[in-house]
Amino acid sequence: MRIVDVIQKKRDGEQLTTEEINFIVKGYTDGTIPDYQVSALLMAIYFQDMTEKERADLTMAMVSSGDQIDLGAVEGVKVDKHSTGGVGDTTTLVLGPLVAAAGVPVAKMSGRGLGHTGGTIDKLEAIDGFHVEITNEQFIELVNKNKIAIIGQSGNLTPADKKIYALRDVTATVNSIPLIASSIMSKKIAAGADAIVLDVKTGAGAFMKTLEDSRTLARAMVNIGNNVGRKTMAVISDMSQPLGFAIGNALEVKEAIDTLKGEGPEDLTELCLVLGSHMVYAAGRAESLEDARQMLIKLMNNGEALEKFKVFMEAQGGDGSIVDNPAKLPQAKYKIDLPAKEDGYVTEIIADHVGTAAMWLGAGRATKDSEVDLAVGIMLNKKIGASVSAGESLATIYSNNEDVDRVKEELYKSILLSKEKVEPPVLIHEEITV
Amino acid sequence: MRIVDVIQKKRDGEQLTTEEINFIVKGYTDGTIPDYQVSALLMAIYFQDMTEKERADLTMAMVSSGDQIDLGAVEGVKVDKHSTGGVGDTTTLVLGPLVAAAGVPVAKMSGRGLGHTGGTIDKLEAIDGFHVEITNEQFIELVNKNKIAIIGQSGNLTPADKKIYALRDVTATVNSIPLIASSIMSKKIAAGADAIVLDVKTGAGAFMKTLEDSRTLARAMVNIGNNVGRKTMAVISDMSQPLGFAIGNALEVKEAIDTLKGEGPEDLTELCLVLGSHMVYAAGRAESLEDARQMLIKLMNNGEALEKFKVFMEAQGGDGSIVDNPAKLPQAKYKIDLPAKEDGYVTEIIADHVGTAAMWLGAGRATKDSEVDLAVGIMLNKKIGASVSAGESLATIYSNNEDVDRVKEELYKSILLSKEKVEPPVLIHEEITV
Repeated sequence: MRIVDVIQKKRDGEQLTTEEINFIVKGYTDGTIPDYQVSALLMAIYFQDMTEKERADLTMAMVSSGDQIDLGAVEGVKVDKHSTGGVGDTTTLVLGPLVAAAGVPVAKMSGRGLGHTGGTIDKLEAIDGFHVEITNEQFIELVNKNKIAIIGQSGNLTPADKKIYALRDVTATVNSIPLIASSIMSKKIAAGADAIVLDVKTGAGAFMKTLEDSRTLARAMVNIGNNVGRKTMAVISDMSQPLGFAIGNALEVKEAIDTLKGEGPEDLTELCLVLGSHMVYAAGRAESLEDARQMLIKLMNNGEALEKFKVFMEAQGGDGSIVDNPAKLPQAKYKIDLPAKEDGYVTEIIADHVGTAAMWLGAGRATKDSEVDLAVGIMLNKKIGASVSAGESLATIYSNNEDVDRVKEELYKSILLSKEKVEPPVLIHEEITV
Repeated sequence: MRIVDVIQKKRDGEQLTTEEINFIVKGYTDGTIPDYQVSALLMAIYFQDMTEKERADLTMAMVSSGDQIDLGAVEGVKVDKHSTGGVGDTTTLVLGPLVAAAGVPVAKMSGRGLGHTGGTIDKLEAIDGFHVEITNEQFIELVNKNKIAIIGQSGNLTPADKKIYALRDVTATVNSIPLIASSIMSKKIAAGADAIVLDVKTGAGAFMKTLEDSRTLARAMVNIGNNVGRKTMAVISDMSQPLGFAIGNALEVKEAIDTLKGEGPEDLTELCLVLGSHMVYAAGRAESLEDARQMLIKLMNNGEALEKFKVFMEAQGGDGSIVDNPAKLPQAKYKIDLPAKEDGYVTEIIADHVGTAAMWLGAGRATKDSEVDLAVGIMLNKKIGASVSAGESLATIYSNNEDVDRVKEELYKSILLSKEKVEPPVLIHEEITV
């Protein structure tokens, strides 16, 4: 097989065979196929797309390129959740304990990563003593015992995806639906998921800005998952403004605790109930989505969801008392309000810019080596649609530095007011099962 | 400037600026831009094409990437001819002496190359003593004195084109009009041409199989030439069958001598008159194309064209007496006829296959290191439209090896007969001036 013939075939819009896709992914991973041929192929894929069969083949070829996590020793259907990312997304912190309380095994492998705030592990480390340095055996044992545990990323998962992603990044081929979808799905499958619930964000603060693009990506991933034997569904949720109120590590942990008690922000709570219902249903722990939802509401109201969070924390060395006394979380030195300059209604909250402002405070990493300040961040006090009087606080800045002029300026440019009343955005746009 | 942004711009169908194109060509030539980004860009160009301005910019950026031949010391308008290649194309051997006899300076730089037969230099070396190892000063002096000289390729001409072409070859991006056109034109311009006459072949034996594709390529090159200040025109000529009768090095020299005397094959003679008229007219040596044509016919008939060939040969060490005694050219040991198996009319001569058969005899190079056998080749005795009786010779095989069964078999499969009369193909399809 000659790679140039495979490139030409794709360039001319023909479907590649399983053998051809395996040949390329294997050859690129082991270095026998050079970057310059793969980048030409990626650009041809950008223009010619891939069929459902090709997407499934590419996904499984990337899964096979490295280690795969064996969760066979975990009892029950392993359901993983993936979000395409946004600002102030606290769902992972809430959903883990919530669905674990409903009996769904949550065996989570997580990373730190770059972004406006830290990754899930950074956030959990806001809790004194909590750590993810446990052995694989301890991890499995904890999941079987408590239904929830989290471990740091280890092993050589989907090296083909890492190499291809790095190449896409420098060849203007990131923004391709088959490549995005297979990249995400390969990682979830290699991490051992039996079923996958996807939260595809849409709107100004999301990777996919339009509902149509988000729907295309969601369908692509759902099809891949189902075509390779993993029950998969997707929710398209709003990211035209940050989710919930908190953007920051300790602030989001506090918000997660509130939400697990049924006292969280309305949008965050609703999204967790929708995603959680699908996870519980996919795991076979409820007869219907509605039953699953009622079960989750009950677990919030009767304290079991929060108790599960406490057990989870303590099992991995964390101070469980934080649940009853969130003041023990890292606290910022300064809390500075952002008073509205006039009366009006909030019409827009530019999520990306609010996230950037949080990163300036130290909540996230700009580069791999940045230190995350767990205490700092931003609490929104008003969301889109809220009425505001001049002088009322739009947001509170949590900072360890007294000088927040730059952050304030950015937030004033990000939280826009108008004299006319506007409606809050729709939170759940669609649920896609095939 | 970031190359990834330039790739994205082209990917999205936007026009690249002169600065962006220079940046890429320069960076790729000096190695600061890696293969994998250029191959992605080439594939984006394959899909998004280039505007006339971009094509002109790319051509001149490749010209500037290396040395440029300075023909300033040559008197008159330097007109170069380029053919997109075919089988049995003896035009270069005829046109050089023919237009030189009309006063057009022919300062030709030529190579050896791969193919069915050798390059122009290989063919001329069939004449005993002829060589192209002359200095640049001798070259210029000979052109000024005799109006014609030929020198081997030297210097570092269009290194960007060489590097880009090699990359295109392994990334399925060869077949792109803007890339083909700028590659050809950059080489002609770097070689010092003031005006360029293009012979774009069309049909089964050509790179461009359809008239439409040939026209598109011809227009692209003519536009580039005129946009960068080189008077350029193109003739679209037939390559549905080999041109002339001879395919082989010494055989083609003999055919060129016949044609210079006005006794050559009809199609070869006509194409040389058409291309030659454009060269003479472009050089300002005739008032009109028709005047130029009459001048060339006269030069054939009065012996001046052939005399120019003799002078040209002798000036570069060749045995000029060959002109009067072509039997001095290298002769093959065996001449084997290919008798027709039935009565009929020739309907098709698959040029590529006839060329391949000639290469098997040793007339061309399959790899860079192959030796060319100057004596061998194929003489067609019948062309499309000719009537044939069973047993009549379709072609004569000139071989230094008695066993030519494989060549015969290939030729029988390439020269097709039918009971119904067919018309010979049109030779000149179009002449494109802008």
